[in-house]
Amino acid sequence: MSNMPLPSSFNPAGIELDRRQGLSRQLYQALRVRVLDGRLASGTRLPASRDLAAALSISRNSVVRAYDQLYAEGFIEGRVGDGTYVAQLPQAAVSVKKLSTKLSTKVSTGFSTGLPTALSTNWLDLPVISSSKVIHRGALGRVEKNHLALPPSGPPRAFRVGVPAFDLFPFEVWAKLNAAFWRKPDLQQLCYGDPAGDARLRGLIAAYLRSSRGMQCTAGQIVITSGAQQGISLCAQLLVEPGDTVAIENPGYQAAGHAFAVAGARLQGVAVDSEGIECAQLAELGDCRLTYVTPSHQYPTGVVMSLARRLELLAWAERTQGWIVEDDYDGEYRYSGAPLAPLAALDRQGRVLYVGTFGKVAFPALRLGYLVLPPSLVDAFAQRRAVDMRHSEVSTQAIMAEFMAAGHFQRHIRRMRRAALSRRNCLLNHWPMSIEGVGNLPAVMAGLHMTVPVSSVARERELIEYAESVEVEVNGLSNYWLPDSQTPLDQRAGLVLGFAAVPEPAIEAALARLRKVWCD
Amino acid sequence: MSNMPLPSSFNPAGIELDRRQGLSRQLYQALRVRVLDGRLASGTRLPASRDLAAALSISRNSVVRAYDQLYAEGFIEGRVGDGTYVAQLPQAAVSVKKLSTKLSTKVSTGFSTGLPTALSTNWLDLPVISSSKVIHRGALGRVEKNHLALPPSGPPRAFRVGVPAFDLFPFEVWAKLNAAFWRKPDLQQLCYGDPAGDARLRGLIAAYLRSSRGMQCTAGQIVITSGAQQGISLCAQLLVEPGDTVAIENPGYQAAGHAFAVAGARLQGVAVDSEGIECAQLAELGDCRLTYVTPSHQYPTGVVMSLARRLELLAWAERTQGWIVEDDYDGEYRYSGAPLAPLAALDRQGRVLYVGTFGKVAFPALRLGYLVLPPSLVDAFAQRRAVDMRHSEVSTQAIMAEFMAAGHFQRHIRRMRRAALSRRNCLLNHWPMSIEGVGNLPAVMAGLHMTVPVSSVARERELIEYAESVEVEVNGLSNYWLPDSQTPLDQRAGLVLGFAAVPEPAIEAALARLRKVWCD
Repeated sequence: MSNMPLPSSFNPAGIELDRRQGLSRQLYQALRVRVLDGRLASGTRLPASRDLAAALSISRNSVVRAYDQLYAEGFIEGRVGDGTYVAQLPQAAVSVKKLSTKLSTKVSTGFSTGLPTALSTNWLDLPVISSSKVIHRGALGRVEKNHLALPPSGPPRAFRVGVPAFDLFPFEVWAKLNAAFWRKPDLQQLCYGDPAGDARLRGLIAAYLRSSRGMQCTAGQIVITSGAQQGISLCAQLLVEPGDTVAIENPGYQAAGHAFAVAGARLQGVAVDSEGIECAQLAELGDCRLTYVTPSHQYPTGVVMSLARRLELLAWAERTQGWIVEDDYDGEYRYSGAPLAPLAALDRQGRVLYVGTFGKVAFPALRLGYLVLPPSLVDAFAQRRAVDMRHSEVSTQAIMAEFMAAGHFQRHIRRMRRAALSRRNCLLNHWPMSIEGVGNLPAVMAGLHMTVPVSSVARERELIEYAESVEVEVNGLSNYWLPDSQTPLDQRAGLVLGFAAVPEPAIEAALARLRKVWCD
Repeated sequence: MSNMPLPSSFNPAGIELDRRQGLSRQLYQALRVRVLDGRLASGTRLPASRDLAAALSISRNSVVRAYDQLYAEGFIEGRVGDGTYVAQLPQAAVSVKKLSTKLSTKVSTGFSTGLPTALSTNWLDLPVISSSKVIHRGALGRVEKNHLALPPSGPPRAFRVGVPAFDLFPFEVWAKLNAAFWRKPDLQQLCYGDPAGDARLRGLIAAYLRSSRGMQCTAGQIVITSGAQQGISLCAQLLVEPGDTVAIENPGYQAAGHAFAVAGARLQGVAVDSEGIECAQLAELGDCRLTYVTPSHQYPTGVVMSLARRLELLAWAERTQGWIVEDDYDGEYRYSGAPLAPLAALDRQGRVLYVGTFGKVAFPALRLGYLVLPPSLVDAFAQRRAVDMRHSEVSTQAIMAEFMAAGHFQRHIRRMRRAALSRRNCLLNHWPMSIEGVGNLPAVMAGLHMTVPVSSVARERELIEYAESVEVEVNGLSNYWLPDSQTPLDQRAGLVLGFAAVPEPAIEAALARLRKVWCD
């Protein structure tokens, strides 16, 4: 073992590790905290892993794992042949905790995204709103037919978006747990329950998020929801007043836009670049109440939000006292490195509301999700849920708790990750090489779908029609944009492909059919 | 068989019965239609059952059952020794269908109930609303603690309100159905589903309501909900705009009031007399958008709304183009005669939204209910539900459908009705005779709870405290009133007692404990 002196600016003595807990995770957190609070300044050279291991008397493996995670998240960087350094992070983000609690909201001057203030076209033409008025005003209470896009139902097909490899769910185990619950139910559980959800499940979710996401949350911060959609909808109902501006990624997740629009929000689309939502554009919006983002795997482009951008977004929320709704809908799926730290794990001012779901690990129809809330918001959310529906069905919660406690959940996540990776590879390997007007496949580091650029919206429509003719489901990227976006129409075109819904043979068969109609 | 001539004003020739269907139900409906449209005028003498049976060539039993139902519902009346006559019904109700579609809304002049227009006190002090504003305005996003009354949780005790005899639920059957569903799930069912709910369950509910409630509804009118509360809440969200007046029974069901208040309604309490909500007072409210009622068994007083009052209420809705939300939360429990026809079965203008639940037949934590909607409203409700939460958990719906299709549901309803009756009788038989300040027990014809008058609110509080000291749950009637009701405070006092939650020995034991602390 070498015993080289550690770089002088780095003091491992300040790092205290509890040997009863995971050492790698603790080291990762200790280093992250020091980067964020400036104790480890940008450019600081870190000790080689074997030296730090020796200094802390832990295994080198633990140090390597901690470094890997910090590297994946952008906190540190390597220079070839020259060791490991603390990365350059945006100054505002690193120092923001030193600012006093509230700054006056910066008012933007004359900035306009060109987006409409009224909800009038395309996927925001939400008759859920207008119908309410029709109901009121119409003499006969007639409601016109409307055009709210619902997720596709029917048997899973290639390349449906938003559906995991749920054919691999251990239904036999789930059936047994169900039978066990119902054969000897605790009568007390069958009365009215806590609107925030089953206490045991809340505790297990908090523990899972602490260990898998580095979130320092407690059971008391968890509110169980009917899927991610109810989590988003509750945020909209409780945090947004009619007329408030809400920023959403553009292109983005339509169903979230619907939930905010129903609450009366004035939606503003903010562009997404290779690092995630463009915070500079967000800052120029001026008075913005809330920003909805998908940092783990941007929906639908697949971009993973960089650490710098995450910190910049948090700085925006702290500066403006705005809210961030972080939808981590498929954060379990990351194929290189561990998942990045969610915004909720980096948040120190209680500005982030984290939306999680079991739908992408188990199956969508389970309708089981959760919110992780700043403690001061928990009561209001639980009570609103009580007024809306009292609470979720009891057995699903209790059985998921048992599924987690017995270790099935962790095993299943690993199985699902492997399956998604293998299905992703199958799609990448069998994708037709040259399709007219279709760009290159992206690197797919995370999630359950990928997005491929197409030369024009006309060509996009054509490809989708051909696909539909051979019973292959392909989504058009152009559908995910807000109306009147500044991005030229043809730059909005693309194909969104879910790769996890069906097994490899079905993927290959679908691609063979696509090759015929697309390439001939 | 006698062959007396039928009364001259009655023409059975117009009644056509389909022999493949239930004859008694068809005859009941044919007669009811004729009473409502005036073909059978008030005071018309009906033929004796055996004569009508002979004229229609059906069994006398079928006629007797139809007459019994019409009698129970108030459409016909008997005069001792003098046969059966069409009852006197309010003229407005009977003739209203002849009015042209829409009348101008009558504006009331100077009427005031003395109720507050702001939601400021007592059980309407709903921080779910105010907290939303606190969240917006407070620099730190702090939400104050609040006072929303939640239904009691914990093990069932005497005399909890709103809980059926769910210790009798066939859990073994339910466990088997669960295991069967999960062992071989239809993968298609595990994707995203229809926000209106499982198609098979919707069909079975419609069939159940047609046969048990005389409602002419189709599966397409059913929207599955997460319990009755979500049904009420959706009505509030979709039919009420901020500032609209909503009439609720006073005393009434708090959780419904909360749902309407959250939607921004201005709540107006309307008194309840021995026939149900006072329609004269309702009519004087002027511009009222919606009325929420519990006609089968008024919550909490236990009054069954008379047929005359039902028709008067429907006439109000048709005249003002108002909506009626009919919460039939425990309509399965009727101990003398068949259940009365719900408003939804009498409605011809599509003004009634019917709220049903499985919670009072199975158990509350099932969170399974449904709405029966006028066809023109179905799409808007389903889509709003999709934005709120997509849809309900899939297995509960599919398993309830199987439970119904296999006949378990009907058997269970009969079992639950018998149990509730027996527990009611136990409470009536063992109730202490003379408790200071406590009035007589009422006749309990329906439902799962009863209300007993008390001489003052002070005495009510005292009795409840004594009860709590011996671990008996008793609710104070005074809690169910809107603030600033015109009814003098002491006339609002009473005890609300649920009698179904625990078996007879536990009821007797609780009454023995109450006797000690109340009577000694």
